[in-house]
Amino acid sequence: MGKKSNKNKENHMLYFGGKDWGVHEEALDLGRSTLAETIFAQANGYIGTRGTHEEGITGNPTSTEGTYLNGLFVRDPYNYPENAHAFATHNNKIIQVPNGKAICVSADSETFLPGESVMEDYSRHLDFQTGLMERSLIWSTTSGKRLKIASRRLVSLNNLHLLAIEYQITAENFDGGAQIESCLDAAYGAGEVDPDDPRVGHLSITKSLVKKEEKAEEGASSYLHQIKDSDVIIRSATSETLQGTTPVRSHVLKEKGRLGTRYEMTLKQGQPVTLTKFITYHHGVAGEEDTLASRAADTLKAAQKTGFAHHAVTQQQKLAEFWSGADVTIDGDPQLQQGIRFNLFHIYQSAGKDGRSNIGAKGLTGPGYDGHYFWDTEIYIIPFFVYSYPEVARSLLEYRYSILDKARERARQMSYAKGALFAWRTIGGEECSAFFPAGTAQYHINAAVAYAIRQYLQATQDWDFIGKFGAEILWETARIWMGLGHFNPRKGGQFCIHAVTGPDEYTAMVDNNFYTNAMARQHLRTALEVAVHLKKHDRKCYDALVEKLCLEESELALWKKAEENMYLPYDKELGINPQDDTFLDKPRWDFENTPTENYPLLLHYHPLVIYRHQVLKQIDVMLAMVLLGEQFDADLKRRNFEYYDPITTHDSTLSTSMNSVACSELGLYDKAYQYFEESVRMDLDNRHRNTEYGLHTACMAGSWMTVVLGFGGMQIRDDKPNFNPYLPGKWPSYSFSVRFRESRVHVAVSSKEVVYTLTDGGALEIAHGGKPLKLAPGKPVTVPLAATEHAA
Amino acid sequence: MGKKSNKNKENHMLYFGGKDWGVHEEALDLGRSTLAETIFAQANGYIGTRGTHEEGITGNPTSTEGTYLNGLFVRDPYNYPENAHAFATHNNKIIQVPNGKAICVSADSETFLPGESVMEDYSRHLDFQTGLMERSLIWSTTSGKRLKIASRRLVSLNNLHLLAIEYQITAENFDGGAQIESCLDAAYGAGEVDPDDPRVGHLSITKSLVKKEEKAEEGASSYLHQIKDSDVIIRSATSETLQGTTPVRSHVLKEKGRLGTRYEMTLKQGQPVTLTKFITYHHGVAGEEDTLASRAADTLKAAQKTGFAHHAVTQQQKLAEFWSGADVTIDGDPQLQQGIRFNLFHIYQSAGKDGRSNIGAKGLTGPGYDGHYFWDTEIYIIPFFVYSYPEVARSLLEYRYSILDKARERARQMSYAKGALFAWRTIGGEECSAFFPAGTAQYHINAAVAYAIRQYLQATQDWDFIGKFGAEILWETARIWMGLGHFNPRKGGQFCIHAVTGPDEYTAMVDNNFYTNAMARQHLRTALEVAVHLKKHDRKCYDALVEKLCLEESELALWKKAEENMYLPYDKELGINPQDDTFLDKPRWDFENTPTENYPLLLHYHPLVIYRHQVLKQIDVMLAMVLLGEQFDADLKRRNFEYYDPITTHDSTLSTSMNSVACSELGLYDKAYQYFEESVRMDLDNRHRNTEYGLHTACMAGSWMTVVLGFGGMQIRDDKPNFNPYLPGKWPSYSFSVRFRESRVHVAVSSKEVVYTLTDGGALEIAHGGKPLKLAPGKPVTVPLAATEHAA
Repeated sequence: MGKKSNKNKENHMLYFGGKDWGVHEEALDLGRSTLAETIFAQANGYIGTRGTHEEGITGNPTSTEGTYLNGLFVRDPYNYPENAHAFATHNNKIIQVPNGKAICVSADSETFLPGESVMEDYSRHLDFQTGLMERSLIWSTTSGKRLKIASRRLVSLNNLHLLAIEYQITAENFDGGAQIESCLDAAYGAGEVDPDDPRVGHLSITKSLVKKEEKAEEGASSYLHQIKDSDVIIRSATSETLQGTTPVRSHVLKEKGRLGTRYEMTLKQGQPVTLTKFITYHHGVAGEEDTLASRAADTLKAAQKTGFAHHAVTQQQKLAEFWSGADVTIDGDPQLQQGIRFNLFHIYQSAGKDGRSNIGAKGLTGPGYDGHYFWDTEIYIIPFFVYSYPEVARSLLEYRYSILDKARERARQMSYAKGALFAWRTIGGEECSAFFPAGTAQYHINAAVAYAIRQYLQATQDWDFIGKFGAEILWETARIWMGLGHFNPRKGGQFCIHAVTGPDEYTAMVDNNFYTNAMARQHLRTALEVAVHLKKHDRKCYDALVEKLCLEESELALWKKAEENMYLPYDKELGINPQDDTFLDKPRWDFENTPTENYPLLLHYHPLVIYRHQVLKQIDVMLAMVLLGEQFDADLKRRNFEYYDPITTHDSTLSTSMNSVACSELGLYDKAYQYFEESVRMDLDNRHRNTEYGLHTACMAGSWMTVVLGFGGMQIRDDKPNFNPYLPGKWPSYSFSVRFRESRVHVAVSSKEVVYTLTDGGALEIAHGGKPLKLAPGKPVTVPLAATEHAA
Repeated sequence: MGKKSNKNKENHMLYFGGKDWGVHEEALDLGRSTLAETIFAQANGYIGTRGTHEEGITGNPTSTEGTYLNGLFVRDPYNYPENAHAFATHNNKIIQVPNGKAICVSADSETFLPGESVMEDYSRHLDFQTGLMERSLIWSTTSGKRLKIASRRLVSLNNLHLLAIEYQITAENFDGGAQIESCLDAAYGAGEVDPDDPRVGHLSITKSLVKKEEKAEEGASSYLHQIKDSDVIIRSATSETLQGTTPVRSHVLKEKGRLGTRYEMTLKQGQPVTLTKFITYHHGVAGEEDTLASRAADTLKAAQKTGFAHHAVTQQQKLAEFWSGADVTIDGDPQLQQGIRFNLFHIYQSAGKDGRSNIGAKGLTGPGYDGHYFWDTEIYIIPFFVYSYPEVARSLLEYRYSILDKARERARQMSYAKGALFAWRTIGGEECSAFFPAGTAQYHINAAVAYAIRQYLQATQDWDFIGKFGAEILWETARIWMGLGHFNPRKGGQFCIHAVTGPDEYTAMVDNNFYTNAMARQHLRTALEVAVHLKKHDRKCYDALVEKLCLEESELALWKKAEENMYLPYDKELGINPQDDTFLDKPRWDFENTPTENYPLLLHYHPLVIYRHQVLKQIDVMLAMVLLGEQFDADLKRRNFEYYDPITTHDSTLSTSMNSVACSELGLYDKAYQYFEESVRMDLDNRHRNTEYGLHTACMAGSWMTVVLGFGGMQIRDDKPNFNPYLPGKWPSYSFSVRFRESRVHVAVSSKEVVYTLTDGGALEIAHGGKPLKLAPGKPVTVPLAATEHAA
C-alpha cells in the first residue's frame, strides 16, 4: 500500500448503513450533518440538491444548504497578490439557486427544528432503485404533543427541471392546531468553509444572482434572477397543494429573500395532512423572461396534475433502465455492494446530459472546487458511461465541443498560433485555475479528452459524433503538442515536452513527464487515425473540416513524425520509466519521519518542499501503464509499480482506483483488493475527510474500473472486449455488464466459472483470456475459471 | 548585445540635462512629470521624498506624491485565489507619511499650479554636491502680474529626521496682495498605477496609517499616526517662519486630512518674501507618544534656530565627505559622467544607515515593489559601499541580523528543523513574495547575504561585526543548504540541490541551478573559514555562538563534505556550464519572430511559455563567473558568455552591469562599453520605461562595478586589491577610489598610464596586473598602460 496506509488503517466508522440498494441513517448526528447532506444528495444532471432537511437544522456550521444548476456559473474576477501574463482572470462558480425544499411545521407555538426539537424513530433512506429520499420521525413538543412527520423527495430523472417533495404530518396523540410553512428561499448561506483548503469551494447565492422579479401567492412562489455580469436568467418557481385538511387560514410570506405560504390548520389525531410541493428551475438568456415563466408554469401544472406518486413511478422506471446496463453485484460483502451502487447511482445522478454541461469533480453534491469540471470526467468517469450508458458519454464529450472556442481562445492567450487548449478547471470553458504550476501546466488535459473520444469511438463506432464534433476536437487539441514540444537534437531528434506537470501534482513543471508524453503520443495517433478514416470513408466531411481548420498536410506529417519519435523516459539501470527527466535524481521523501497527521502533504508542506522530493500525490507513470496497457509489457509495469507504489501517498482520490486496476493486472491480488476497498467507500466512509464539500466523482467512477477493468480484466483488444477475470479471494461471486457496439454482455464471475450472457443486442464476439468467444442471444457461455485465476 | 538590443537602439531622448554634478530640467513636461519626480527624489536613508512640486501639479495621473520612511511598513494580508501551505501571508508595504512639502501661493484670486498656470524661465536642478533641489520660475497671472517663485529643499544627511524647504516669492511688476498656504497633508493619493504589472507598488497613506492626534496652530502642524495593526507610531510635524513681510492675516487650516496655515500678505515689488519650512518625522512604539512629541519639537526648534542656510552648508560638507571616497570621474563624456554620479548620489541617499533598515529595490524614490528589499542589496549595492563607504555596508548587513529571527521563523515554515532562510522580498523580515516560483524558490538569497559578509570582511577585517552578527548569520543560513540539498548517489555522491530558481527568473524551479550551487559552495566555505578563524582567535565568542545555536561539530563536517562535493553542472560537448540540469535540453526562444514590443517577455507571455525555452531575463551562470571569478578559468568564462549572451534579454535591470564586468574581463571591450552605457543611464533615460515608479538601485550601483571591477579590473587576490585597468576607447581618462582596510587608493587611468595614489590611511600593498605594488602616503605610483590594455 502507499504511504498513507497508516492513516487509512484507522478504524473507519461505518457512518451510513443501508441495504444493497440504498443508504440510510437511524439517527441525526450534528457532528456529521454536512457529510450526510452530501451522501443524501439528489440530482438529475441539471438540478442537484444537497440532502438537507426541509426544516433546516440547528447550529452552525452544521449545514451547507445548496441547490445547484449544472453548467451555470458566475464569473468572479481573480485578484492575484502578484499577477502575471495570461493568468486565469476569472473563476467560474457554479450557480446556487433558491432553495425550494424549505418546509417547516409548527404546533403548540413551537417550530420543529432537527437537532434541537425532541425526536423519536428518526430514519432517513436514499434508495438507488427508486431514486427517492424518504425520512420519517416523530416530533414531541414540550407539552408532549406528538407529530409524525414523513417526507419523500425526488429530483426527476425524466424531467430535468423538476424537484418534488411529499411532506406529511400526522397528529399522533392530539387534536389541535398546527402550521406548515412552505418557502422558496433565495437568501440561504453556504455554510462555513476552510479558507485555506484549496479543495474547498466558496459559494454565495446573493453574490451570484441579481433579483429581477419575485412573486408570491397562496401555494405558489417564484423568482426571476439574472446571473451577475451575464445575460443568463433563471426562473425558480414552486407550487404546492395541501391534502387531508382545509387550512383555517393561510398567509402569503414575503420576507427578505424568502417567498412562501404559511398554512394554519386543525389536525385530527391519526389523520395525515400532506403537502405536495413541486419546484422547477429553468434558465435562458435576457429577453426570454416570458418563455421561462410559461415553461415553469407548464412544468408545475403538469406535475401537479400527475401528482407525486406518478413521478415516483417513472423515476423508478428510469433507474431500472439505468441499472439494467450499469449494475455491478458483489456477493458476500454488503458494504462493498452498497459502496459500488452508491457510487454508480451518484455518478449517473450528477452527470450533465444536455451536451452543454459536464460532471463536476464533486458532481452536483456540494460546493467543493466551485463546481468545476476537470480531466476527471474523461479519464475516470466517461469509461463507465461508454460501457454502461454511452449516450451520456456522448453528451459529456459534446460538452467539450461546446467549449472548443474557449479552448481556442486559451491557446492564443498561451501564445499558440494554432489549436485549442482545454482549461485545467472550468465550467464555461475559460481557464479557472489560479495556481498554474498544478493547473495550466497540466497540458495532459488535451490528451485526456482525446483518450475519451477514442475510447467512445472504439466502443460505439459513432462516426456521426466524430464527424460533427470529435475530429475537430481531436485535431485542434493535437496542434498544441506541436507548439509545446520540439524535436530535441540533444536526444537524437526525439520529440520532447518541457515545463509541464503530470497527473501527480507533487512534482511540478518538469521536462518530459512520462505520462504526458505517452498520452500525447496516443493523442497524435488517434488524431491521425481519425484523419485517415474520414479521408477514406467520409471525404466530404474530411474536406470540410480541413478547410474550416486550415489544416495542412504538413501538419499531419509533423504529427506523425512527433508520435513516431516521442521521447518516453526510460532508466536502464532501474529498468523503469522515470516520472520525468529529473525525478530519479531527487531524494526520496522521508516517510519514516512524517507524522500521520501531516497527510495530505499539500496541507502541511510548502509546494517547494514537496516538489524537490520523490513523492507522489497520485499515480502518474502507473496511470499511463493502465490507460495505455497494450503499449507496455508486464515486466516493465511490474518494475514501475514496485518503484512508485512505496512513494505514493494517494493524497488524491484519483489514485487508488487506478492503482487497483494495475495491481489486478500484475497479479497483486491483495493489494488490488485493498486499493479497491480504499476507493469504493471513499465517500461513504469519508476517508479523505472532506466529503462534506461534495462527493469525489472520479474516485466513485474509478471503483467501477477496479471491478470491470481490474477484477474483470476487461481490455479492448483487436477491436473487441477481452475479459480476463479473477475472483477476489473473499467473494463468492460478482457480476457486471459491458455494452459494446449494439450489444450488451453480462459477465458473472464465481469461484469456478465465468458466465457470459448477452442481455441486449445481437451476436457479439468477445474474448476470454485472449481466446475468442462468440456470444449469441439466449445462449450464455460458461468458461471455467482456473485455480490460478483466483486471488491468493 | 542581448536580445533586447533592438528595443534599446531606439533613440533615447536625453530627458534630463545637467552638468557634471547635477541633473536639471528647463521645462515642465506633464508627459513625464512622474518620471521627473523619481529623478529629483531626495532622501537620507530614513526619509525619502519624491521630487514633486510643493504646489502639486495639474492633471492626473501626472503625479505620484510620496514621502516614505525607510524600514517602516504596514502588514497587508494576501488573499490568494488558490492558497497553499506556507505561502507568504502578508505583504509589507513601505509607509508613506504626511507630505510636509505642500506649499502654494495665490495672487489675484488665482492659485499657482504647475502645468496649468502660465510660467516663464522655469528651471529645476538637483545638485549632487550640495544635495539641494532648487527650482525657479516666474508665474504670470491672467491680469499680467508676475511673481518669481524660487525654492530650495534638502533632506538632511546630518539629521535623519529633517526635511527643509526654503520657498521665496517676489513680486516682479506690482505691489499688492498675495497668499501663501503651507500644509502637512495626510490624505494625498499614490497616483494611478498599472494593476497588472508585478513590478509596480500600490501604496496608500490612508490605508496604512490610523490618525491618533492632529494639532495645528499658526506656523506649526503635527500629526500622530499609528501604523494599522501594529504598535508603531509616527509623529510628523512642521514648523515654518516667514521673512520679508509681516502677514496681514493668517488662518490656521484644518481641512480633511490637511493641517496648515494660510498667510495673507502685501508684496512690494522686488522685495522677496521667504517661507522657511522644516518638516520632521520620528517613529517609536505605542507608549512613546510624549518622547516623539518632544523629539519632534526639539528637531524643529534646533532647525529653525540654525536656519536653512546652515543646513545647506552641512549638507554639502557631508556630501563632500561622501564624494571623497566614492566619486568616479569619466572624462570626455558628460552624459556618462552625469550618469555615474547620479547613480552613486542616489544610492547613498537611499541606503538605510541605522542597522535596522536597508535599501529598497527602488530606494526611497517611488512606490515600486512596495519598497521591498531584495538580494539586490547584497550582490549589487553593498560592493560599492564596502569599497567606498564601509560603515554603510556594515549597517546594511546589520539589518540582516535584525531580521534573523524572522528568517528562522521562515525556515520553520518551510519545514527546516534548523537554520534561517531569508525572505526573497521583505521589509520587516517575513517572506512577502506572493509568487513563489520566482520568489521563495530563489534560495540563493541566503548565499547572497553570505557573499556580502565575506566581501565586507575581506575589505575591512571587521571581526567585531563577525563576532557580534556575521558568524551567526553565516552559520544559521548555511544550515539551510543541508536541508535543501542531498548527496546524490546518481551523481556519484555529489551534493545536489533541487527545485530552485536562480537569478534568471525566466527559468523556474529547476535542479542544480549552476549559480545557486556555486554560491552555496562559497557560502559553506565562508561559514567554515569564519568558524576556523573564530575558534582559533576568539574562542570565547566561538563557544558562545556554538552554544547559542546548538551547532554541532558534525554539522561543520557535513558543510565541508557538501562544499567539497558540490555538484556544478558542466556540459562536455559544449564546454559550458548548463544553467541547470535541463536547461540545454530546451528549445531556444524564437527571438527572430518576437516583435520588439513583446519585450519585456514577462509582460507578454505566460510564465510557462517562457520557462520552457532557453531564454534569460538576466545573466545567471555569468553572474557566478563574475562574482566567483577566481574559481573559473577564462576559457570557460568565454564559452559561457558566448553561449548565454545571445539568449539573454536583459529584461531585468540587474543584468547589463554585471555582464559588462564579464565582457571587460573577457576583453570584449565594445560589448563591455555598450552594456555600461545601458546601465549607467538606465534611469536617467528611462530605458525600462518604469522609472516613474522608482529608481533601479541595483542597476545604479551595478554601474559602479562596471567601472571599478570591469574597466578597472579590480579583484581581491591574495588578500589585496589587484587592478587590471584598461581605457574604454572613447575616453581620455577616468578615475575612481577604493577603500581597503584602513586606506584608500585613488586610481586614475589615462591613455598612457595608471596613477595609484593613497588618499587616506597608511601604506597599502596592492597589485597591478598581478604584480605587487606598494603604495605609501604622498607617493603616487605611475604604471604605464600597454597598448594591448586599451579597448579596440
